[in-house]
Amino acid sequence: MISDGTLRQRAKLLWCGGNPTLSSRYVAEERAIALTFGGSTNAVMMATPADLEDFGVGFALTEGIIEQADEIASIEVVESSLGIEIQMWLGRDRADELSARRRAMIGPVGCGLCGIESLEQACPAPRHVSSTATFRARDLLNAMTALAPLQELNQKTRGVHAAAFWQPHTGIGLVREDVGRHNALDKLAGALLRENMARAGGAILLTSRVSVEMVQKTARIGAAVLVAVSAPTSLAVETADQAGITLIAVARSDGYEIFTHPDRLIFSDFPTVAA
Amino acid sequence: MISDGTLRQRAKLLWCGGNPTLSSRYVAEERAIALTFGGSTNAVMMATPADLEDFGVGFALTEGIIEQADEIASIEVVESSLGIEIQMWLGRDRADELSARRRAMIGPVGCGLCGIESLEQACPAPRHVSSTATFRARDLLNAMTALAPLQELNQKTRGVHAAAFWQPHTGIGLVREDVGRHNALDKLAGALLRENMARAGGAILLTSRVSVEMVQKTARIGAAVLVAVSAPTSLAVETADQAGITLIAVARSDGYEIFTHPDRLIFSDFPTVAA
Repeated sequence: MISDGTLRQRAKLLWCGGNPTLSSRYVAEERAIALTFGGSTNAVMMATPADLEDFGVGFALTEGIIEQADEIASIEVVESSLGIEIQMWLGRDRADELSARRRAMIGPVGCGLCGIESLEQACPAPRHVSSTATFRARDLLNAMTALAPLQELNQKTRGVHAAAFWQPHTGIGLVREDVGRHNALDKLAGALLRENMARAGGAILLTSRVSVEMVQKTARIGAAVLVAVSAPTSLAVETADQAGITLIAVARSDGYEIFTHPDRLIFSDFPTVAA
Repeated sequence: MISDGTLRQRAKLLWCGGNPTLSSRYVAEERAIALTFGGSTNAVMMATPADLEDFGVGFALTEGIIEQADEIASIEVVESSLGIEIQMWLGRDRADELSARRRAMIGPVGCGLCGIESLEQACPAPRHVSSTATFRARDLLNAMTALAPLQELNQKTRGVHAAAFWQPHTGIGLVREDVGRHNALDKLAGALLRENMARAGGAILLTSRVSVEMVQKTARIGAAVLVAVSAPTSLAVETADQAGITLIAVARSDGYEIFTHPDRLIFSDFPTVAA
């Protein structure tokens, strides 16, 4: 059995009519990952066990716990037979804020009346992305084509999603993969924050569908453009509109659909020539 | 704007080189749905606002809160501008059990030491499915082909997943769709429980990938076979093996891959003829 911790070879029977044949394939590893702050668990995710420090930092960013990577005083990844813990300790101010948030959250969950307050927390107004950057429509199409060969784990397993960051001139700078599309985007968010990369002039590329949470995370990351292979939900479109994000989806080899803020895109393939 | 609550028409620019053209497409609706028991919220999911009573009952089953539909004394779906609440009230015994579970869960989340206990809760041993049913390999392939035209919401939006229940002789009896694959399976679980259908002799069909949670839900439903369009994770394969579930994945038009318990499958296309 070959395994680098992110994939594993599994026996399978391949059946295409007649008698099945025994062979094997690589499947993606999936582990329980606990994200803890100050020793208390905020979430447990089933995720690909790679880029875990990025995952921790990105989760903290997209959940609104931090704004900058250095607000996490220390981070440690601890593995056990049960799963993996990403143990984070926040600086004093952020730790106090999180404690206050946790106390506030205990109320509504147990108020015994209704779920209204839980619903209020579920869809906060997205952060607004201010960016005057412009993007050639053709470049973004080419970027999506360039992504597939960079999805190393998916090339072997055909079972994981990718999130990537693309910038004009430099192209795809970062790719992160995970069995969960939310996790892939959180890992990318963490990598961007840890490398202190400017995000407003770039685009997030996703291999998945676009639900509202993918747009909310993109807004927290602060990227101007989101391009996805599959379709958006209605709420994702509304939220991208509010957040000032250019939402592009249903990206195929020959084109795509633009749902919000097309003003950032340059459709002409050639530079404008003065008359 | 046309909408039946599950989809919405949205303007889009279609770009395939040159100038973009304005048109529109249907996108799937996505709402915040709070699942409450006895007035306390257990979870808020972003989901397709359809089949919500099935969703509530199925969530209660797959989370191990109930075993039978009638253990929910009453269920009410309440809509507000913030989202939708599925308000459930449990019978006395189950309500007491849930209260005890909730008290036990407050501990580890706030213990201030580590995330170990959270990890223990994340991957419980799956329930074992005992079923002596057998299935023709060819029938299951045909079942996957039969599913696509039954995915009504996906036919319009190309943005939602489906979970279906198939039985030999009767074919696909139930289909549920949702922007989230976990929700689609929970809705199917609830529909099966509410209609009191025997599950051990049937197969769950999924349009998605197979992560461990999809296998755990199938085990709680008690179906013998799980067939999915896309690839499984390693942990999903392990868990299906433990649970006694026949896991079939990477289902294409001409065949599929079998990862666990192939003994339930009959590969010959013709009835055995005595020599």
